[in-house]
Amino acid sequence: MAVYTQVSDAALAEFLSAYDLGAALAFKGIAEGVENSNYYLETELGQFFLTLFEKRVNAAELPYFIGLKQHLAGKGFPCPEPVMGRDGQALRTLEGRPAVIVSFLEGLSPKRPNVRQCRALGENLARMHLALADFPMTRENSLGPKSWAALWAGRADDADALQPGLSGTVEAAFAEILRARDSFAELPHGTIHADLFPDNAFFLGDDFCGAFDFYFACTDALAYDLAVCLNAWAFDDGHAADGSALEYNFSKGAALIAGYQSVRPLNAMERDALPVLCLGASMRFFLTRLVDWTSTPAGALVRPKNPLEYAARLAFHRRMESAEGYGA
Amino acid sequence: MAVYTQVSDAALAEFLSAYDLGAALAFKGIAEGVENSNYYLETELGQFFLTLFEKRVNAAELPYFIGLKQHLAGKGFPCPEPVMGRDGQALRTLEGRPAVIVSFLEGLSPKRPNVRQCRALGENLARMHLALADFPMTRENSLGPKSWAALWAGRADDADALQPGLSGTVEAAFAEILRARDSFAELPHGTIHADLFPDNAFFLGDDFCGAFDFYFACTDALAYDLAVCLNAWAFDDGHAADGSALEYNFSKGAALIAGYQSVRPLNAMERDALPVLCLGASMRFFLTRLVDWTSTPAGALVRPKNPLEYAARLAFHRRMESAEGYGA
Repeated sequence: MAVYTQVSDAALAEFLSAYDLGAALAFKGIAEGVENSNYYLETELGQFFLTLFEKRVNAAELPYFIGLKQHLAGKGFPCPEPVMGRDGQALRTLEGRPAVIVSFLEGLSPKRPNVRQCRALGENLARMHLALADFPMTRENSLGPKSWAALWAGRADDADALQPGLSGTVEAAFAEILRARDSFAELPHGTIHADLFPDNAFFLGDDFCGAFDFYFACTDALAYDLAVCLNAWAFDDGHAADGSALEYNFSKGAALIAGYQSVRPLNAMERDALPVLCLGASMRFFLTRLVDWTSTPAGALVRPKNPLEYAARLAFHRRMESAEGYGA
Repeated sequence: MAVYTQVSDAALAEFLSAYDLGAALAFKGIAEGVENSNYYLETELGQFFLTLFEKRVNAAELPYFIGLKQHLAGKGFPCPEPVMGRDGQALRTLEGRPAVIVSFLEGLSPKRPNVRQCRALGENLARMHLALADFPMTRENSLGPKSWAALWAGRADDADALQPGLSGTVEAAFAEILRARDSFAELPHGTIHADLFPDNAFFLGDDFCGAFDFYFACTDALAYDLAVCLNAWAFDDGHAADGSALEYNFSKGAALIAGYQSVRPLNAMERDALPVLCLGASMRFFLTRLVDWTSTPAGALVRPKNPLEYAARLAFHRRMESAEGYGA
């Protein structure tokens, strides 16, 4: 939501001299991304984005994220494609930060995705999984179940303060996921986006234009990515003041799953695991939101999102017994 | 430096239906402007900017600012040109805020303007004054000498805390400006930008591409606008930790004045008034920075600029006795 590193016109000109993009014609800080500084860049050759990676990003992981986007773009999947300098490198340094130029992606993020957009998202999630099937690099899911105990430690009281009894629900859900986890290893694995929320996807009308913000991408169960998307795309805001009155929109969820299966059908094990994968996805976002909620000082640059929106999803998924309940 | 009002894709589509610009192809919040929300907007017809005016802006003044830009653009002076809807109106409402679409301006703001850019800025400042000579609307300078007593009231201790003895310098400068003020009425008046800092101007290389952010524009002495620019463009950062070690760059100042005079020569009275106009301009920015500095909470969204940078200019201008000292 902010530009953290200022780039002078002189530093930009020096940086661009390593590329064959011509001179800069426009350069504007974009109020997007909470981890990085993002700029709209127009040069004599066209429109681009320039990202500077701030200190919270692990620089050692950047080649994975850049390689992933290069691989996807090479397969024709729409995403920001890293632009190489004349030295064949996409990653270099600007104003003391790792920096990369990527291609410009047209489109708008839907605020309230409709059923047709959910179907298109499902289709393209599956296309992305297939396009990444031969991507050779791997990255552990740093926000998988192994990380949750550390996120949850000492926060039971915070959860109960948000909603009486919430800590009990969270701990029961933990137990449920841990019981199921042994079987997860047998699910088809691959490279997943792991954070494909509507604000990380572009559409023009109902047509999918691309996915971006791959900085949580990792190697995990493919159906877990579908579970993340069901959480992010198929719940309608109930307009409660605390953000908790959410409802699963069966039409949107069913369309998302049908779109996915039209490209890559789920196997029986994935179908069986869908409710607990959805529960796990809601747990992951509940926990990171709870951490942000309780650790962000008042008046900070980025306003944290309400964890109760994911507590409501968590409660919903605990009641679900089969993939049919989601419209599969 | 931030986007305050979020615009949904649905609200944007509804808003654009009042224009002949086609559908939105891209829409990105821009990390620019401290008073308003600014978006980069691309439609089927081209590139634009969309501004939403936030609550600090007086909506009654918007027709003045919009009319001013329409007038300038009509004269061929490069600035963001308000785009009319099919109803002939440029100003309408989006997400509950007054909103306007303006044309896209290419260029980059120079971080450290060079002598050639200073000359071009001077030429174009004078061109802007001439283009506005028949602009019929007027607006009082809300940050002129009449406003200063209220800005200064109760802040002498803050000034002395920043730099021992500073309050005495400020009050002596006040007295000096008030003594000279009676003669200001006889200076040529017109419509001025009043805030034409390097970050409100675009260049490609040394070529001036346009001016923007006219939200301090008002009716005042034309030479005061030149004085603002001398303060903003012709001092070099001395790299002191407190930002106070600034030096007047005679080459840049002389080039700026020469550029201005190549289009609109100063009369004798304007030349005589130049030092005290420069003193007044440094006072105006010192005072508003002092207010922001002392009233902005730590950790706020916008980090205030150091008032001492303008205290240093103020001290410089008090020592100047004639326009020759500036290179005129």
